[in-house]
Amino acid sequence: MGKIYVVGLGPGADMQMTMEAKAAVKQCGIIVGYTVYVDLVKEEYPDKVFLTTPMTQEVKRCQMAFEEAQKGQDVAMICSGDAGIYGMAGLMLEVGKEYPEIEVEIVPGITAANGGAAVLGAPLMHDFAVISLSDLLTPWEKIEKRVKAAAMADFVICLYNPSSRKRKDYLKKACEMMLEYKSGDTVCGTVRNIGRDGEESQIMTLSRLKDTEVDMFTTVFIGNEQTIEINGKMVTPRGYRNV
Amino acid sequence: MGKIYVVGLGPGADMQMTMEAKAAVKQCGIIVGYTVYVDLVKEEYPDKVFLTTPMTQEVKRCQMAFEEAQKGQDVAMICSGDAGIYGMAGLMLEVGKEYPEIEVEIVPGITAANGGAAVLGAPLMHDFAVISLSDLLTPWEKIEKRVKAAAMADFVICLYNPSSRKRKDYLKKACEMMLEYKSGDTVCGTVRNIGRDGEESQIMTLSRLKDTEVDMFTTVFIGNEQTIEINGKMVTPRGYRNV
Ligand SMILES: C[S@@+](CC[C@H](N)C(=O)[O-])C[C@H]1O[C@@H](n2cnc3c(N)ncnc32)[C@H](O)[C@@H]1O
Ligand SMILES: C[S@@+](CC[C@H](N)C(=O)[O-])C[C@H]1O[C@@H](n2cnc3c(N)ncnc32)[C@H](O)[C@@H]1O
Repeated sequence: MGKIYVVGLGPGADMQMTMEAKAAVKQCGIIVGYTVYVDLVKEEYPDKVFLTTPMTQEVKRCQMAFEEAQKGQDVAMICSGDAGIYGMAGLMLEVGKEYPEIEVEIVPGITAANGGAAVLGAPLMHDFAVISLSDLLTPWEKIEKRVKAAAMADFVICLYNPSSRKRKDYLKKACEMMLEYKSGDTVCGTVRNIGRDGEESQIMTLSRLKDTEVDMFTTVFIGNEQTIEINGKMVTPRGYRNV
Repeated sequence: MGKIYVVGLGPGADMQMTMEAKAAVKQCGIIVGYTVYVDLVKEEYPDKVFLTTPMTQEVKRCQMAFEEAQKGQDVAMICSGDAGIYGMAGLMLEVGKEYPEIEVEIVPGITAANGGAAVLGAPLMHDFAVISLSDLLTPWEKIEKRVKAAAMADFVICLYNPSSRKRKDYLKKACEMMLEYKSGDTVCGTVRNIGRDGEESQIMTLSRLKDTEVDMFTTVFIGNEQTIEINGKMVTPRGYRNV
């Protein structure tokens, strides 16, 4: 019986991989993943078997991994960022109910929130909320409720899936909700292609963010009351003790 | 002029370090940090200069790093987990105002939320809030407001600094607040010594968590309405689409 590793590759799948993730991928004969991530590591491991399924076939992708493990191979299911943050870790454990004999280990990775924060400076130094604006799997009312609650309690907010072709105005809507509680001057940041070619970031006010278009390869950060800009970096001070 | 790297070592400072963090520490002649973390890497690098300050002297620790960089050395300021999550990244950028000529790069690490989630299973698969229960740097009223808002909007909640000698009952208080909005059956988890010797985890209900004592080396996870236990793992499904 093989073992399954669900491995987060970090935002860029390269130098931001952990030693543990690197070792797990190396030891597995079979690598399963969404086409785009498999392409990221394929070159480096010409001797491995790669199995992919397109974006929508997540359950099938999980079953494929368990079936290969049943045949005796160690399998790495790879994800970008952290597999446990809007990734495949949960579904693998759910599908795993049908394969109780197969051991599944989750190998954490740097998620876009942490990778993007490091590019911007230190926006997440204090309490923060991570919210996905995708309503594919969550009713929009629930997303609204969370955005409002997080803004009301002055969390730093980090938005995943801020945009897609079908929901171009979701970020604008979220900003409008946050503006009910947060000042228009709140320091915000966007980071695109974290850890990848073409990485770019911007710092701006919440008022400007409202009228900014971002794409699905972007993670968005909205500061709390204390967040400031220092030399082009977005910084949330740790607390009320003075420096 | 030297350069400063603010490096997150991951929860265990070992296999959960990224390749990038490893490379940054390797290239720096001088390593600055809180005594406990310096001890974690000292053995591996007998040829480096190590500078430490105790827990309360954070500003001094930052100034020390900048002064060494001014003398021409590359300096790594090391933190456990991610330096940008309740770590030293923000303060370094604040103190850096006085040293505009020194470049500071933040190197992200696996934070306790992600490392602990992987141990428990996949608790953070959906929107989550990270809150520190330490009121050293934040007024307790603000912490209360955040705990309540996050519970009300059905976030998965991840608690850092859940306890200390002086605030043994803070976790109990936080659970009581969450119980105003979340069911007593809500699936919760605690992880102690993530990535370190003696790593241990437990899954329990929110009612039981309320009467559980944890220490400061523990990170606590409180599920959302949909969080379940599967074969001893804590899993938050991604959304309402069926498996
Ligand atoms: C389905 S989620 C996957 C998150 C991933 N598992 C992680 O932990 O980073 C996709 C969203 O994550 C964010 N994201 C993931 N990788 C990114 C990168 N390299 N640069 C910027 N944003 C990224 C974007 O907001 C994107 O819309
Ligand atoms: C001052 S914060 C530092 C957080 C760190 N910068 C990070 O990103 O993980 C200390 C708190 O983080 C959590 N923590 C840090 N390392 C941990 C570990 N190895 N195991 C469990 N919890 C940990 C605990 O809740 C602890 O009280």
